[in-house]
Amino acid sequence: MPFINVKMIQGRTLEQKRELAEVLTREVVRILNVKPEVVELVIDEYPSENWASAGKLYSDK
Amino acid sequence: MPFINVKMIQGRTLEQKRELAEVLTREVVRILNVKPEVVELVIDEYPSENWASAGKLYSDK
Amino acid sequence: MPFINVKMIQGRTLEQKRELAEVLTREVVRILNVKPEVVELVIDEYPSENWASAGKLYSDK
Amino acid sequence: MPFINVKMIQGRTLEQKRELAEVLTREVVRILNVKPEVVELVIDEYPSENWASAGKLYSDK
Amino acid sequence: MPFINVKMIQGRTLEQKRELAEVLTREVVRILNVKPEVVELVIDEYPSENWASAGKLYSDK
Amino acid sequence: MPFINVKMIQGRTLEQKRELAEVLTREVVRILNVKPEVVELVIDEYPSENWASAGKLYSDK
Repeated sequence: MPFINVKMIQGRTLEQKRELAEVLTREVVRILNVKPEVVELVIDEYPSENWASAGKLYSDK
Repeated sequence: MPFINVKMIQGRTLEQKRELAEVLTREVVRILNVKPEVVELVIDEYPSENWASAGKLYSDK
Repeated sequence: MPFINVKMIQGRTLEQKRELAEVLTREVVRILNVKPEVVELVIDEYPSENWASAGKLYSDK
Repeated sequence: MPFINVKMIQGRTLEQKRELAEVLTREVVRILNVKPEVVELVIDEYPSENWASAGKLYSDK
Repeated sequence: MPFINVKMIQGRTLEQKRELAEVLTREVVRILNVKPEVVELVIDEYPSENWASAGKLYSDK
Repeated sequence: MPFINVKMIQGRTLEQKRELAEVLTREVVRILNVKPEVVELVIDEYPSENWASAGKLYSDK
């Protein structure tokens, strides 16, 4: 703990995932004053037909 | 906010996902008295070998 | 399965939760063509200081 | 990783939570062949008015 | 309810998933004193580039 | 979307939550190149008897 989860539409690069992991972990470590080893981060990626805002799928926008 | 998540076995059509997004958002907007723009809906789909009830995988039923 | 999760800021009434459960389950049953008995719905409520949009906590808005 | 989450109606004892943590972690370690130190387990507890099955809140059953 | 979720890096066999479902359900039934039919278990699998610990993706380790 | 969730043991201050919201949102906006308005962040807080690592509850450590 802590456990960070980022949900997003699929299509980001490996480099973006790597930077998310590095930067979000570093900031959580700093703000919550915990050791890096206890921080886990998991990314959920979704096809645009599985995410809607205001009732409309992203694949229909 | 609010944030709606539906987890289900994979295999539904795009039309079913579209109707889930439209209808569930519309009902949450009505019941909670919020604006449609603040409602997000995300669908998690699972292969039948990743979901069990009563200790038995759906792929084994 | 399916499993429905609604996350929202706390403060809704029991009657609103009851209607969410009834209506969202009924619509999921109809759209996905499943039996009501297999549908679970869980509500996560958050204090406004635990939810942010655009980087700002709801308790600060 | 792995990360185990158990969602349940509130009201269980500390002893039951302790046994959940010990036993589920031990079994995941054995089945997935991982080290205990990498396994996290988190319990979400819900009031019975926040969980429904078949469209009916547990608090109404 | 209860609802068990296991998140893990992808690559496990069907037999491991089957055993997770059987054993974790059996233990939750025993510890919480519930009927097997009310226990659901869902497995989320992640590519190693979507999971980080200590700020480093598993795919980079 | 994106949707950020941070799970942690309870006991952090409002100021820490505010900084988590501001900083994590800012970094996700920068890395994923999205607008701030589409980013939601939700914090789940747990009592130490509801979180275990290596099979041991934090409240027992």
